[in-house]
Amino acid sequence: MADEVPPPAHQVPAVSISSDGTSSSTVQKARFSDRVRIRSILGRPDGGAGLAGQKVRISGWVKTGREQGKGAFAFLEVNDGSCPANLQVMVDASVSDLTKLVATGTCVTVDGCLKIPPEGKGTKQKVELSVVEVIDVGTVDTATYPIPKTKLTLERLREFPHLRSRTNSISAIARIRHALAIATHTFFDEEGFLYIQTPIITTSDCEGAGEMFQVTTLISHTEKLERDLIENPPPTEADVEAARLIVKARGEAVAQLKSAKASKETITASVAELNEAKASLSRTEERSKLKPGLPKLDGKIDYTQDFFGRQAFLTVSGQLQVETYACGLSDVYTFGPTFRAENSHTSRHLAEFWMVEPELAFADLEDDMNCAEAYVRYMCKWLLEKRYDDMELMAKNFDKGCIDRLKLVASTPFGRLTYTKAIELLEEAVAKGKEFVNPVEWGIDLASEHERYLTEVVFQKPLIVYNYPKGIKAFYMRLNDDGKTVAAMDVLVPKVGELIGGSQREERIDVIMERIEEMGLPVEPYEWYLDLRRYGTAKHSGFGLGFERMVLFATGMDNIRDVIPFPRYPGRADL
Amino acid sequence: MADEVPPPAHQVPAVSISSDGTSSSTVQKARFSDRVRIRSILGRPDGGAGLAGQKVRISGWVKTGREQGKGAFAFLEVNDGSCPANLQVMVDASVSDLTKLVATGTCVTVDGCLKIPPEGKGTKQKVELSVVEVIDVGTVDTATYPIPKTKLTLERLREFPHLRSRTNSISAIARIRHALAIATHTFFDEEGFLYIQTPIITTSDCEGAGEMFQVTTLISHTEKLERDLIENPPPTEADVEAARLIVKARGEAVAQLKSAKASKETITASVAELNEAKASLSRTEERSKLKPGLPKLDGKIDYTQDFFGRQAFLTVSGQLQVETYACGLSDVYTFGPTFRAENSHTSRHLAEFWMVEPELAFADLEDDMNCAEAYVRYMCKWLLEKRYDDMELMAKNFDKGCIDRLKLVASTPFGRLTYTKAIELLEEAVAKGKEFVNPVEWGIDLASEHERYLTEVVFQKPLIVYNYPKGIKAFYMRLNDDGKTVAAMDVLVPKVGELIGGSQREERIDVIMERIEEMGLPVEPYEWYLDLRRYGTAKHSGFGLGFERMVLFATGMDNIRDVIPFPRYPGRADL
Repeated sequence: MADEVPPPAHQVPAVSISSDGTSSSTVQKARFSDRVRIRSILGRPDGGAGLAGQKVRISGWVKTGREQGKGAFAFLEVNDGSCPANLQVMVDASVSDLTKLVATGTCVTVDGCLKIPPEGKGTKQKVELSVVEVIDVGTVDTATYPIPKTKLTLERLREFPHLRSRTNSISAIARIRHALAIATHTFFDEEGFLYIQTPIITTSDCEGAGEMFQVTTLISHTEKLERDLIENPPPTEADVEAARLIVKARGEAVAQLKSAKASKETITASVAELNEAKASLSRTEERSKLKPGLPKLDGKIDYTQDFFGRQAFLTVSGQLQVETYACGLSDVYTFGPTFRAENSHTSRHLAEFWMVEPELAFADLEDDMNCAEAYVRYMCKWLLEKRYDDMELMAKNFDKGCIDRLKLVASTPFGRLTYTKAIELLEEAVAKGKEFVNPVEWGIDLASEHERYLTEVVFQKPLIVYNYPKGIKAFYMRLNDDGKTVAAMDVLVPKVGELIGGSQREERIDVIMERIEEMGLPVEPYEWYLDLRRYGTAKHSGFGLGFERMVLFATGMDNIRDVIPFPRYPGRADL
Repeated sequence: MADEVPPPAHQVPAVSISSDGTSSSTVQKARFSDRVRIRSILGRPDGGAGLAGQKVRISGWVKTGREQGKGAFAFLEVNDGSCPANLQVMVDASVSDLTKLVATGTCVTVDGCLKIPPEGKGTKQKVELSVVEVIDVGTVDTATYPIPKTKLTLERLREFPHLRSRTNSISAIARIRHALAIATHTFFDEEGFLYIQTPIITTSDCEGAGEMFQVTTLISHTEKLERDLIENPPPTEADVEAARLIVKARGEAVAQLKSAKASKETITASVAELNEAKASLSRTEERSKLKPGLPKLDGKIDYTQDFFGRQAFLTVSGQLQVETYACGLSDVYTFGPTFRAENSHTSRHLAEFWMVEPELAFADLEDDMNCAEAYVRYMCKWLLEKRYDDMELMAKNFDKGCIDRLKLVASTPFGRLTYTKAIELLEEAVAKGKEFVNPVEWGIDLASEHERYLTEVVFQKPLIVYNYPKGIKAFYMRLNDDGKTVAAMDVLVPKVGELIGGSQREERIDVIMERIEEMGLPVEPYEWYLDLRRYGTAKHSGFGLGFERMVLFATGMDNIRDVIPFPRYPGRADL
């Protein structure tokens, strides 16, 4: 086949940066591009020095550029998003028009030669690129570019969700977020858990976890109908009556022809006319009933006309659904978006956020705590190993303590104490003069100030509080033998407070039925959930981790809107 | 701390099944449970024989059970979801009441000793478990259990989405789906791509990729208002008039007091009464305007009152949004749910499905094709390596050819040909007598019958068709120099036809503006997308893979509703 493009003759293996200082001295090209990633150069243990003398093509965006030597040459700091570091690029005026290269935000692809920078230049770079040819330039009009060299506040950057990934801070957060997501999948896969995609559109709610968004096609159908009714007004009662009279007249005509023993053809033609009139009447009657507004039945919205034939929502949690797979496949997890239609304008809430929810069959609360602890520590170790450069950037620009916090969590066994003990400790603190906004007594839901006091002041390390009063917890949590508490647990960490909430699930059908009744919940919507207890019930446990909370914890950022690429909150859903 | 549970003293490493036959002779416990996974026994190269003599605890659900020897003992086939194989479990009547163990669906946790089965029993099992103690039983009422031993059709199983993961077929598909998801993340992470979570709720549409679901809180607010209006009917015009008269009277009273030079206190009190009356009037007027139905402004629904202050939808594709991150971080991908509100009842369409969408900066169409091919082949190799047992089950029960198909794709370079060449080949076939339902001529969109003919009959291997007529493709695809075609490509595979669609993106601002105009699209909604071309534009390419299509391709299943845990389609959104 003449115009068949041959497949790549040699499939270059993925770039791997060895950490023992023995990197190869040949530069590794990105596999699906003709460029070399800047990380493949600067991310080497030798900072790229061992590559001096090699010719490479690099691409990226100019962070800062300046002409020097009275316009004889220019220095560009180029970043391609593969790592926080920029490659210093030197372009001679004989090679290219320098004025179109130096503006912040300019995209360049250049061929050049890697060189050790002259000593005494005060640069930290182990290598720089001396450009031989400028291959491609995407220019920038500095007068209108929304994110120029001058630093914008994080708040201002949120106005440009389509451009903010070009900044040091947002790109470092994106790489850290990526690393945490990959660590999550790697951890659970290694431990034998199966990734189950639970539904986003749901007709269940997870025990009123929060206000839900509705998913519907009713409004667009209603709008279409209303437009149609304006263009073609529905028949009036008089129109219907007129159609009815035609049917009557044609009926009489048929009867007359029959009694007059008219020819078969004549009668057949007349009957056809009658049927046509009947069909027209039926259409007229049908259309005369059309009304603007949402379809209603007995005064309520008629959801049988909605896409799924019933009211549907965006999920608030995949837990109940993923339990169904745990009760068949043993160890599973879900990692997906969840939603709350709450009018929260805080720095800790989003309308759309991601949750990791593992579910372990044949596991009790202690197994659940062990899993939660192992998972969080695994993520911390992973970050320290894979994204130390990005963590250094966060420590430098946002939160000095963030690396130490990761090290603490990675190396320290979590404290564990019962809720009852936690209340005792808080009461002791109050007795000694510590003041809380929220009063402390057995039975309360721990407030954020209590949680942070315990983890940051008393223990100074991550903490798991377990066995909470049943009154403040969900119906599906397993009732303890004391009849007062349930086998629930929360993982508290410095900086963000509650990171994880979990429990052993109530596997006893009689107990869970009693709990549902006790809490005044309807049984019918949970029949499928109860089936798991009716048929081959299994001890099982699970937990949920708010993924953005984990990113906040790792990066030390303060506002959750900065740790998700496209934040959604009341009044805002850009792009 | 007296009641602090000590952390696990020894953290057992994850179970790893070596494939070279040198597995350790010590059985590996699941890390977060006191049981041993059945896969850790039967998944060994020796089928578990090397573990004979060891004591283990296993848990799982009884697939089949039978009493033998006149009730002296029972054999149970137990499955825990970790692998397709069941462990044969032998229980003596002296150990437990056998009648409550043998029903299909019963959940058991048992301690026992692994033994080599006596020869000549005709069993394929290399090892069986002789039970010493029954630890836990979750019974089943066989009279009501919806998925008994007798095989149900896949269609019937869809009625029980909460229980169907206990069947051989659905559990094997779940494990294959998991493996494909992990292969996806591993491939892109290894290749230096960053996982970007694009938004689920969006205010953009990806160039009318399809009908969208609306996300709203307006209906629930309207319902609440309508309930409230029934309980507390709004004020009538007479009520408003009455309130107005009170204001007038109080105003006159104040004027009178002032002209009568009443005391300051008297006047102040009178003014206060006037203000109260004014406030009451304002509330009455406000409430009198309340109407049932969705809030309207100038005859249209007033979306400023909706949660996001504007109309919002479920995403149909994350491509446009992920492009913004590619134009800052270079190589990125998104893997998330996407939605279509289309009234499709076919075996190939879902209202909610998952897409993998990589986006490569500094890459042209050939790089894009190389990436797509490498990714698909990687997944096929991964499955053959990691889930061969499940693939054998699929080959045995559903599609004899599925393993050969994976091997073919894993080992064969994909064919590549232009759209123009594809049309020529189809026209040649027609000339030779091949009949298609859809006529063939340059300019048509290839129909599924054309695609499958090319990949299954002409080439008998995966195929990439590229350079499509611009008239049938989206505005963002890069215009080729011929002015007639765009740099688009589709990957076609046997069994499912189109698996991947992708393109090089138009990075030239003037060309893309022209294309938008040419196609009669509005410019305003794409301003943010155009900004990527205005400021530091970069050559870039990407593609989308329908994840469920990949699962169909791998498993050989026919209906897409069976390869996603909780299928959503018109009229159905269970759980």
